[in-house]
Amino acid sequence: MKTDLDRLMLERDMDAFVVTGGEEQNTARYYLSNGAHITHGSIFKLRGQAPTLVCNRMELEEAQKSGLNVITDVELGYYERLMEVDYDRIEAQVLFIGDVLARLGLASGRVGLYGTWQINQTIALYESLTRAHKHFEFVAEANNTLFQEAMLTKDADEIERIKSVAQRANAVMQLAWDYIANLDVDGEYLLDEAGARVTIGDIKTLLRRELLARGLDDSNTIFAQGRDAGFPHSRGEADMPLQLGQAIVFDFFPRELGEGYFHDMTRTWCIGYAPPEVQETYDTVLEAFEIAIESYGLGKPMHLMQEAVLDHYEAKGHATIRTDPRTMEGYNHTLGHGVGIDIHERPSISHTARDDVFQVGNVLTIEPGLYYPDRGFGVRIEDLCIVDERGDLVSLSPFRKDLVIPLKTSGN
Amino acid sequence: MKTDLDRLMLERDMDAFVVTGGEEQNTARYYLSNGAHITHGSIFKLRGQAPTLVCNRMELEEAQKSGLNVITDVELGYYERLMEVDYDRIEAQVLFIGDVLARLGLASGRVGLYGTWQINQTIALYESLTRAHKHFEFVAEANNTLFQEAMLTKDADEIERIKSVAQRANAVMQLAWDYIANLDVDGEYLLDEAGARVTIGDIKTLLRRELLARGLDDSNTIFAQGRDAGFPHSRGEADMPLQLGQAIVFDFFPRELGEGYFHDMTRTWCIGYAPPEVQETYDTVLEAFEIAIESYGLGKPMHLMQEAVLDHYEAKGHATIRTDPRTMEGYNHTLGHGVGIDIHERPSISHTARDDVFQVGNVLTIEPGLYYPDRGFGVRIEDLCIVDERGDLVSLSPFRKDLVIPLKTSGN
Repeated sequence: MKTDLDRLMLERDMDAFVVTGGEEQNTARYYLSNGAHITHGSIFKLRGQAPTLVCNRMELEEAQKSGLNVITDVELGYYERLMEVDYDRIEAQVLFIGDVLARLGLASGRVGLYGTWQINQTIALYESLTRAHKHFEFVAEANNTLFQEAMLTKDADEIERIKSVAQRANAVMQLAWDYIANLDVDGEYLLDEAGARVTIGDIKTLLRRELLARGLDDSNTIFAQGRDAGFPHSRGEADMPLQLGQAIVFDFFPRELGEGYFHDMTRTWCIGYAPPEVQETYDTVLEAFEIAIESYGLGKPMHLMQEAVLDHYEAKGHATIRTDPRTMEGYNHTLGHGVGIDIHERPSISHTARDDVFQVGNVLTIEPGLYYPDRGFGVRIEDLCIVDERGDLVSLSPFRKDLVIPLKTSGN
Repeated sequence: MKTDLDRLMLERDMDAFVVTGGEEQNTARYYLSNGAHITHGSIFKLRGQAPTLVCNRMELEEAQKSGLNVITDVELGYYERLMEVDYDRIEAQVLFIGDVLARLGLASGRVGLYGTWQINQTIALYESLTRAHKHFEFVAEANNTLFQEAMLTKDADEIERIKSVAQRANAVMQLAWDYIANLDVDGEYLLDEAGARVTIGDIKTLLRRELLARGLDDSNTIFAQGRDAGFPHSRGEADMPLQLGQAIVFDFFPRELGEGYFHDMTRTWCIGYAPPEVQETYDTVLEAFEIAIESYGLGKPMHLMQEAVLDHYEAKGHATIRTDPRTMEGYNHTLGHGVGIDIHERPSISHTARDDVFQVGNVLTIEPGLYYPDRGFGVRIEDLCIVDERGDLVSLSPFRKDLVIPLKTSGN
């Protein structure tokens, strides 16, 4: 969590870091600025000191919501630097970064660079920084970065926010279930009140509307039916009518409006009835989910959980990413990932990334699946789980894990 | 526009480019992939050849919507590379980029790098690419990049999409006006049907709901009242009740749902009545807007338009960014910017960026303003304009430019 940053800087022999970037959504900047929505501006932190947010003067009011030390670029002389280099923004930023570090009291040392930006501008900035400031060493961490490590665990405030998103997301999923369960049936299709076939697009519109009413953003929900459900990241076709007996993978990961924290859960539904091969596959995936939960232990390496699931699937004769890393069928992804400001964060419950162990404050998905696009279906079951203060693994996704949505006309 | 890319590559002596990145929203990738929503994957283009999209196998179906040549990372041997370097993703990508360039027929030459990514990962990738592939020169353009140049003008398909967003945005602004005009008045405040004071948050909720119903995303609308209106980028406080006679800067820039094209317009409103000093300032800004439009000419340098506005303001005694680049009062920003997949693109109507001239296919804002936060107000008027096929400057923002919203109780 955030309070780990100084320790992590020390471990990495880092004297300071700079989080910069342009208008792009910027995870590290958002993380440090405590929910203030900054679209410009950089954050400087010396080890052992509180961070300073250098904002564009036009964003001063918003920047102050961060609770950080805030200074505007005007006060710090950015515009003089800009004129000095004939309005070359990269060169101005190079000089300015030196100015701010000096003002904060750092004349030399190792300085980490983070944030999100255009690839071409980042490289140009880095090359120029390296040329201009010989007494600093600029550090670019490729893997297991400071921020990834800090975000491995969430603090109480972050967990509260994620729980609140979870509660709202579960409620909206229930609305979608109820809406479908109460539709009229016409052969293999479902009809709305006006007698039109209900499509995937209609369900997505309902989800967006209900999320918005609860202060959440839809973030490209997966509602993929039939063969599409067999591709883990297919979003589903808006025009496709809902059809009885087709596997629907509903992967639902809304976020706080604008920027903020995510929740992530998946259910697989068949409307009215499930074909035997889908039901059998579903049962295998639900067993995998239960095996994963049972294999949990505080302090235990996460790869053991993925391996327990791989063992289960392989014993049942399914191809897996371990037996064939290129497989498009069977189980072809990792078991889970951290969730926070990004939908995919560390840790990873993977048999190839073997560093992570379960610890208090983890917020991560557990999501076994099986995919058979050529047989016209896929199945995934996913809960978002936290490791609570007692070290217990607790699901934030209590929504029922039933495959079949019974229809009112089926007598249910 | 996109058809300029080969010419621009030749001018820059670039043999190929690679657009890469992670899950970040990625303008260059979206631009090239023709509206397909790719969250992973890289695009490779050799000069004179059609682009190739290398996608994550999980996104194959979505990737194919791009109409590009699509190959999955599995087919191209990415996972073998990943195992070879013991799952170091940066090193695997370095080898993989070489593999793909070789497969496309390029053994040496200058290769541009573009896209959006984490700053630390970008630098690590660049350093490793440079070490590993000595026969390629990797090029990072800092300014006036290939993509910025191409996006200076929009093609017919892009203009159609922007016009459609414009039409919907103007309609939603009208709904907001009508909603406010029909509220009940209670002293200096406005009451909704339930008798509660209407807040900025209520207006933003209405905007989001009506945008969503029209397939548009709200993107952090500015609806800033009173002193907040005096800060060009203040978003406005959700809890603040609407108040009669206060200047409200309403800067509205919705986008196609998910990813896509923006429209951008601003109106300044006073509910019920306008104080004389706000009215006077408004009239000065509206004159500035008209001066800007009158100064337009096809082929004419854009900085002349900003200078015409600066002359006007300075003659009226206002501080400007030209007389004092650090000013927080008066006119402290550029006159306009390009709009497309990004809300801020080139060109820039600026007295310091002097390269751009008006040309057919430009889509850009014209947005003079005046800001007096210490006097409790700000004013901005903004239209999105295109330079059409005949070379005429045409506004896509026909919404009325009236300062005062008359209330039904004022007898209007």
